[in-house]
Amino acid sequence: MENMFDDSYFMKKALQEAEIAFDKGEIPVGAVIVVENRIIARAHNLTELLTDVTAHAEMQAITAASNFLGGKYLKDCTLYVTLEPCQMCAGALYWSQISKIIYGAKDDERGCTALGTKLHPKTIMVGGVLAEEASSLMKRFFIERRNLN
Amino acid sequence: MENMFDDSYFMKKALQEAEIAFDKGEIPVGAVIVVENRIIARAHNLTELLTDVTAHAEMQAITAASNFLGGKYLKDCTLYVTLEPCQMCAGALYWSQISKIIYGAKDDERGCTALGTKLHPKTIMVGGVLAEEASSLMKRFFIERRNLN
Repeated sequence: MENMFDDSYFMKKALQEAEIAFDKGEIPVGAVIVVENRIIARAHNLTELLTDVTAHAEMQAITAASNFLGGKYLKDCTLYVTLEPCQMCAGALYWSQISKIIYGAKDDERGCTALGTKLHPKTIMVGGVLAEEASSLMKRFFIERRNLN
Repeated sequence: MENMFDDSYFMKKALQEAEIAFDKGEIPVGAVIVVENRIIARAHNLTELLTDVTAHAEMQAITAASNFLGGKYLKDCTLYVTLEPCQMCAGALYWSQISKIIYGAKDDERGCTALGTKLHPKTIMVGGVLAEEASSLMKRFFIERRNLN
């Protein structure tokens, strides 16, 4: 029960990041990286603002966490991200050797599971934490901001 | 013949970037991005110096090219990179919708082909341009700098 509480707690922090992205007109994906119940990195998607496809929430969170830790390997770290990582982000997470990836909503089209991206043997990935909240935010974005309803 | 000359010419520029990485103690991978025979981005691997697994040559080149172009899609661009892109870089190139990827040495273990990373339908990838030069530089690095001989 305690772990479930923790995952929900940190995913809410990732969702707060996703909401910041939403307000900036970015596809609303947020992420935090946690070590021993401490958030060491927070990030949200900034691909439009930076005109840079590499500026996904996870990529920025990896860079920030490495900077915080002073090392490039994210051992004993957990990434909470509102949407299942894409090939690029899963590929970056592979290199980081991160211990755990917890995502919210599944991405059946461009997610790393559907596309078969290889994770590091040291990495565990779990999905579906606050998936409905993450998914609702995405749907609202595409209806309100991109008129795709 | 003209195209072959061009590919060799630009791959040499990517190899120069790889040599800069080598001199910095980085795994020697270099990249340039070209539009209409003009180099708009140059980069080399900086993962050690930046303690950041996302700092591959291709990732930096994508960011730099997008910045130069003022847009996040690399249409009509060609990436020249000395080593076959990994999952992360191929995933980033997917999002960039880059027109062409030309690499030097193949990476049978961690390259995007072996790992089945999906490229964008608009992207053509060709390997083997100055492969021997790129491969030799890599081998020399691991022998001289990492004592892996």
